[in-house]
Amino acid sequence: MAKRLPRRFAIGVDYGTNSVRALVVDVEDGTEVGTAVFEYPSGEHGVLLDSRNPNLARQNPADYIEGFYRCVRAAIRSIPKSAGFEPENVVGIGVDTTGSTPIPVDENGWPLAFQKRFAKNLAAQAWLWKDHTSYAEAAEITEKARQMGLPYLAKCGGTYSSEWFWSKILHCRRTSPEVFEAAYSWVELADFIPGWLTGNLKPETIPRSICAAGHKAMYHPAWGGLPSEEFLASLDPELVKIRRRYAPEALPADRKAGELIPEIARKVGLRPGIPVAVGAFDAHMGAVGAGIKPGTLVKIIGTSTCDMMVVPMNEDLPDIPGLCGIVPHSIVPGMYGLEAGQSAVGDIFNWFVKYLTPAQYTAKGDPHAALTREAEKLLPGESGLLALDWNNGNRTILVDPLLTGLLIGQTLLTTAPEVYRALVEATAFGALTIIKRFEEYGVAVKEVINCGGIAEKNPFVMQVYADVCNRPMKISRSAQTCALGAAIFGAVVGGVYKSVEQAQRRMTGVKPTVYRPRKAAAAIYARLYELYRKLHDAFGLPHYETSLYDVMKALIAIRKEVRKEV
Amino acid sequence: MAKRLPRRFAIGVDYGTNSVRALVVDVEDGTEVGTAVFEYPSGEHGVLLDSRNPNLARQNPADYIEGFYRCVRAAIRSIPKSAGFEPENVVGIGVDTTGSTPIPVDENGWPLAFQKRFAKNLAAQAWLWKDHTSYAEAAEITEKARQMGLPYLAKCGGTYSSEWFWSKILHCRRTSPEVFEAAYSWVELADFIPGWLTGNLKPETIPRSICAAGHKAMYHPAWGGLPSEEFLASLDPELVKIRRRYAPEALPADRKAGELIPEIARKVGLRPGIPVAVGAFDAHMGAVGAGIKPGTLVKIIGTSTCDMMVVPMNEDLPDIPGLCGIVPHSIVPGMYGLEAGQSAVGDIFNWFVKYLTPAQYTAKGDPHAALTREAEKLLPGESGLLALDWNNGNRTILVDPLLTGLLIGQTLLTTAPEVYRALVEATAFGALTIIKRFEEYGVAVKEVINCGGIAEKNPFVMQVYADVCNRPMKISRSAQTCALGAAIFGAVVGGVYKSVEQAQRRMTGVKPTVYRPRKAAAAIYARLYELYRKLHDAFGLPHYETSLYDVMKALIAIRKEVRKEV
Repeated sequence: MAKRLPRRFAIGVDYGTNSVRALVVDVEDGTEVGTAVFEYPSGEHGVLLDSRNPNLARQNPADYIEGFYRCVRAAIRSIPKSAGFEPENVVGIGVDTTGSTPIPVDENGWPLAFQKRFAKNLAAQAWLWKDHTSYAEAAEITEKARQMGLPYLAKCGGTYSSEWFWSKILHCRRTSPEVFEAAYSWVELADFIPGWLTGNLKPETIPRSICAAGHKAMYHPAWGGLPSEEFLASLDPELVKIRRRYAPEALPADRKAGELIPEIARKVGLRPGIPVAVGAFDAHMGAVGAGIKPGTLVKIIGTSTCDMMVVPMNEDLPDIPGLCGIVPHSIVPGMYGLEAGQSAVGDIFNWFVKYLTPAQYTAKGDPHAALTREAEKLLPGESGLLALDWNNGNRTILVDPLLTGLLIGQTLLTTAPEVYRALVEATAFGALTIIKRFEEYGVAVKEVINCGGIAEKNPFVMQVYADVCNRPMKISRSAQTCALGAAIFGAVVGGVYKSVEQAQRRMTGVKPTVYRPRKAAAAIYARLYELYRKLHDAFGLPHYETSLYDVMKALIAIRKEVRKEV
Repeated sequence: MAKRLPRRFAIGVDYGTNSVRALVVDVEDGTEVGTAVFEYPSGEHGVLLDSRNPNLARQNPADYIEGFYRCVRAAIRSIPKSAGFEPENVVGIGVDTTGSTPIPVDENGWPLAFQKRFAKNLAAQAWLWKDHTSYAEAAEITEKARQMGLPYLAKCGGTYSSEWFWSKILHCRRTSPEVFEAAYSWVELADFIPGWLTGNLKPETIPRSICAAGHKAMYHPAWGGLPSEEFLASLDPELVKIRRRYAPEALPADRKAGELIPEIARKVGLRPGIPVAVGAFDAHMGAVGAGIKPGTLVKIIGTSTCDMMVVPMNEDLPDIPGLCGIVPHSIVPGMYGLEAGQSAVGDIFNWFVKYLTPAQYTAKGDPHAALTREAEKLLPGESGLLALDWNNGNRTILVDPLLTGLLIGQTLLTTAPEVYRALVEATAFGALTIIKRFEEYGVAVKEVINCGGIAEKNPFVMQVYADVCNRPMKISRSAQTCALGAAIFGAVVGGVYKSVEQAQRRMTGVKPTVYRPRKAAAAIYARLYELYRKLHDAFGLPHYETSLYDVMKALIAIRKEVRKEV
């Protein structure tokens, strides 16, 4: 170690749904020398709920402030002496957050939630990404943009989501006018943190992330930034003020938001003046931390998935129906960032374990492990089951939250591990559908790098993905790709690297283990995927008439063949 | 009691899948004075299995012989003194059995299984109704009858089943030629028992039940009895011998098969010479015991269902596609007997409890009861779930064993009691589909009488049936309708009554409790049934193209409406 001194470090801070993590990284090679997690203290695991409304999910902005102090201090304390860490050798800080998570703020950019009169008002808190209270407003925005013949939806898959910026603000206007009136403006959490760290919170000038703006607020240079005042006024005249109090140009995360202010630096034991990068969303910085580049699909697989690709901006790129977003600079600056995803993956497995798994698998140890042990023994097609992965709707490619799960092929002998395997396979079929959509529109998927909890810890799931997608599945070397990605942006704004790509080449990598497709399994899955797609289209596409008579028959035929039944 | 002495009694003997029951009944009013059950000792609960072939299900004919002795003796012993039973007051015996359960026999009508060389040969045993080894032969018979333009399938729903007489014999010919060669003929269990009791076993002359012949062997007076020699020879020339060794006329069960022979009478403590009725199948005699008459649908609900109706033979009755059978005299002599059914009902609930029910419902007491407690609290439509009841294929109206279960509408919060309720509802939708088929073809269902284990013991299921079918559900007074029905035939051949109808009026009845449809529930179920039917037709009908896009949407809309979600 001594020969490489003095080492230089970047800090990545990753605001997740339930906690915030800080990661201290050696900028030379991405070595992670220290990390710490702070669990948000408010609500249920950091989420403020309303028992009368299952769609509501808010967060207390005070948790974000306290979280930064606590996790950065703890991460620094966690660094072993031998690592040679010195606070003065921190070259930059990067921040990623969930999103769209907009916060109503006053004219100084300070959350309304910090005012006594709004402290307990749920509408004055941060509107967490998974808050779905605004579904009617989302539908209204989609409808209005279509009616008015405006292009705003072209880059976000054709449908505006209830999870996104304008839906939430409009819903607040309609249902909590007192909060809407008091809000001078709204800022995304991804903008708020860098703004706060750098003393630059004023709504008109706070650096706005192009990742947040582009993927969630219909910002695009092609139409001059945010949607027009005319369009916003047609939804509600009051929305115009939000547009006017928004920086005209949104920025990529390789740009400096500012420098760490002394007050905060002191509290966490860092030097003031450290460059802080413009923010971006967790999955986008995670893709960077996983080593995204043209031709590489990065899948972040957890309770849901994000599927990210980049395309150089000098290449022709059509609008791709069903993608959550195509935004310049949103992942790697200088490239289009493409975001797709599945609304539920690990959540589906967790649902099955929690609600439909008998005692023999739950009695001792991890039920997932117990089910996996049996599910692994099954051959593809052996159970005769097929499922759709829509228990939480379908994000890509149907962009439809009003879809549900489906299981077909049950007999009187169907077992829990068989269903579990069918659910795993369903999410793999969903993953393949996204890959096919990319490729149909000319974005070749030459490599798949997986990260997130399931990629890290679940060889069974990854092998099914390899077999179903008939491609090798690589695993990101870092287990903290989001925080690592944020640190990479810290290293770039700190001047260590000229570009994100250069930083990635040094700081990211994949594990030696690669899950490779097995020929026989892939052949069966190719046949099952045709049946999956048949169900997918039958239940997912409007005005699509088809015969499903052969689906059960084909599943039985495959089952017989695989079991070699007489 | 004394004033009515001497009471007269009939004995009904009911051969089920796992056991045989004897019931001693007062012929005046159907009072059941004594009963006993004998569990078959061979195989698994009386069924001989083959671990290499899940379709195989056979029985040891010795169990039938021993079973008669044991259960009749025990039933007589069980009669309380106060009942005034005297053996000489037994006026007749009726017998019902499972079917089609054909037995290969020698030229004296004695089962090959009783020969030492065949004792362990599975092909030489009784081929239990649920043996499905002959599915290829069934398809061949259906195909051949269609090709040759023959009418034989018109009265059995258009498709010959792997459960039936000729499929099984043809399969034996193909796969166990040594047994086929040794068999002089084949007799149904429903014929074997009365033949044995009356010393009348010779294959050419043993009284053949029109119920068994008509529903399972394509016997019909319209084409002069069994299918033509030409047709049978086209399947296999050797089948012709079976036809030639079969009584030319099959008989209804109000005809006497003969009189109890002394050897058997002595062993059970009865007088020789007691009239024994021609046999029939359990469900058919069960329908009689439940009080079937024109306009009354009798549902026997257990692991599967049988749905029976009768139509006077002077009325016009078209062929009804999808019905298992329309056979003259097969239930009530002088009427057409109509048989429909669902391949799995209680079996589906049992499957869910065994394979997919978490510990909180299985840890103590009856899991069905625990699930029912929660499922009962749900409103129709509240879960957003919908299922197809095809885990064991579909008997009526699709006549297709190559169908499987389906569940749609799962979210990340779907619970086990919700799925359980959806499965119960699915079987109710299947029941309604059968009722609708009867009515579409002019057979009005004016009353529904339910019997069998589920009807007896499950108010929750019966209330769902009432709500889904939007009709009152009555429950048969006797818990042993099959054995009671057999006893009724015993009473008729014993001369107590001139007709089955006359006997039924005195010996059958319904319970005071009637499950009545609730208006609000029926209204929701009418909407859910439309969706069920959409899935039913989409997956069940060949060449049927349709859009299913609205199914998930409609389930969500109904769920919202019922939950009054904002």
